Amino acid sequence: MEAHGFVAHHAGASLVPFSFSRRSLRDRDVAFDVLFSGICHSDIHQINEDWGPSIYPMVPGHEIVGVVSALGPSASKFKVGDRIGVGTFVDSCRTCEYCLKGDEQYCVTGDTPTYNGYERDGTTIAFGGYSNCFVVDEAYAVRIPESLDLAGVAPLLCAGITLYSPLRHWNASKDSTVGIIGLGGLGHMGVKFAAALGADTTVFSHSSKKRDDALRLGASHFVDTSDHDQLTARRGQYDLIINAVSADLDLAPYLDLLRVDGTLVLVGLPSHPYALNAHALVSKRRSVAGSMAGGTKELQEMIDFCAEHDLTSDIEVVNADYIPTAFERTVASDVKYRFVIDASTI
Amino acid sequence: MEAHGFVAHHAGASLVPFSFSRRSLRDRDVAFDVLFSGICHSDIHQINEDWGPSIYPMVPGHEIVGVVSALGPSASKFKVGDRIGVGTFVDSCRTCEYCLKGDEQYCVTGDTPTYNGYERDGTTIAFGGYSNCFVVDEAYAVRIPESLDLAGVAPLLCAGITLYSPLRHWNASKDSTVGIIGLGGLGHMGVKFAAALGADTTVFSHSSKKRDDALRLGASHFVDTSDHDQLTARRGQYDLIINAVSADLDLAPYLDLLRVDGTLVLVGLPSHPYALNAHALVSKRRSVAGSMAGGTKELQEMIDFCAEHDLTSDIEVVNADYIPTAFERTVASDVKYRFVIDASTI
Repeated sequence: MEAHGFVAHHAGASLVPFSFSRRSLRDRDVAFDVLFSGICHSDIHQINEDWGPSIYPMVPGHEIVGVVSALGPSASKFKVGDRIGVGTFVDSCRTCEYCLKGDEQYCVTGDTPTYNGYERDGTTIAFGGYSNCFVVDEAYAVRIPESLDLAGVAPLLCAGITLYSPLRHWNASKDSTVGIIGLGGLGHMGVKFAAALGADTTVFSHSSKKRDDALRLGASHFVDTSDHDQLTARRGQYDLIINAVSADLDLAPYLDLLRVDGTLVLVGLPSHPYALNAHALVSKRRSVAGSMAGGTKELQEMIDFCAEHDLTSDIEVVNADYIPTAFERTVASDVKYRFVIDASTI
Repeated sequence: MEAHGFVAHHAGASLVPFSFSRRSLRDRDVAFDVLFSGICHSDIHQINEDWGPSIYPMVPGHEIVGVVSALGPSASKFKVGDRIGVGTFVDSCRTCEYCLKGDEQYCVTGDTPTYNGYERDGTTIAFGGYSNCFVVDEAYAVRIPESLDLAGVAPLLCAGITLYSPLRHWNASKDSTVGIIGLGGLGHMGVKFAAALGADTTVFSHSSKKRDDALRLGASHFVDTSDHDQLTARRGQYDLIINAVSADLDLAPYLDLLRVDGTLVLVGLPSHPYALNAHALVSKRRSVAGSMAGGTKELQEMIDFCAEHDLTSDIEVVNADYIPTAFERTVASDVKYRFVIDASTI
């Protein structure tokens, strides 16, 4: 299938138009017209090889939504015209215990990333969502209810699930106190989900300008982390804190905020190791944990939860020619709260 | 009640004989003749103020076993002649959620340590178990079945519970793979408990001389951590690893040993912070946690578990005049696996 999109040809390259082929439909494949494609900070990191060697040519994008255009011979999960989405992976071994549980992101052989990776044959480069069309095994796509704004759904497929999954795994509920560190693309979804799950939710941010937005998004409390007294006043009060900041951060004051058996979850990858004081954990049986995206089963659960709670990402829809500016503004945290490319302009 | 014991009069002091008074029996107090008192490495740390300022005069000892000699007017939990034990704390607020759950070690006001602390009045120094007799509220003592060797029970009250509690909290069982880092006073109890709980148990030690003992104590596997290949061969295999080493340690190779959702539990307090790489946690939803001793309810559960499994600490019983040498050998890790003072020599 002929496709076009935007590509980086080498590390640090600007994106340029690109024509390429999507595979012919396999037995259970589904093809869809991409309508919106989210811009994730990790797109920029991978283009720039911030996390190690990348694979080029690279068509980025792993927050992809659109409408089904064609079906493989045995595809039965969707029909032409359905609204579907694809997140951070497009395949996995399908046989390990994690794949069988629907936790494909923890596949023992590694999942097949939506871009910057090879398909299971080990040689075909996977091209992402900055493109006009997409082909994927139906098992790795999720259904998007008609009630949800499609553009606002795109960021759910990475930013959303990255927060939804740990909130669910560590049982955020009306009986829990939840903190979200950082109010950016990830954090703002964390606030929406935590509040929708009924948790008493606090935003921790060093920017007091974000107070109004934090409360609008559903937080009950806002703590300006540049004010030491505000932080210490909340010691020992949180069941769960999610660190949605990828910059280097001193964990110590946040560990102090946790109750006995509380957990601090990391979802970002800062450039340096954290310093971890054992006493902060030992004295209150606290944990520091990590979490990465979510499996297909949980992606669908999240989308359905969003439909139930009429909840999507706060976005700024942009044309493809705005991508360079959107990248700059993403790096500068100057977006409320996520850029989404209108794929009709690709 | 007139008492005698051994005391440190100032930081770093050698222990010398000491006469002092135990309180008169309160309503629910129980007095007991101390028969054995374990030597814990933390006794030495606290005498030397390694962890911050200590309170002097200090009678150390928080692994105390003996026979009931007298009862307060309303004491009903034990009778004269019963074998009982006291661990790392002797009181707590009794009203917070953790006290009510029997997790007094996490009391929100702080528990009352068995020594190197003040009683609830805030002024009376608590004297520990290097002594001929002891007085405690019956709620903070546990019953020791007749079948268990009393001297071997003493170290259970700190070293034992410090390993038993996290093994139980993180569900070590016949369905789990458990690693114990370090085969000393703490680690050897971890091996015994993990094996008795049915877990497939591995000892990680940099001393290959400990292999035979590890297997004798119940481990199924021994990994010489100085051999990088032995470590990497076990990547991704463990549900739970307990770090029973208090020296500084690189956590990275041990985090790699954990499965998805696996937990590394710290029970010691090294002198420097750990370096923690977020990727090791994020990529497999792993956790690093801490755990401290255990509550009275769990102490009794552990003692009963030990009776059921005919299990006590491996010990070397010494006379009181051997304490200075025992301290030196404890610091040098030259004991299999715990010194216990015969209190009749105090």
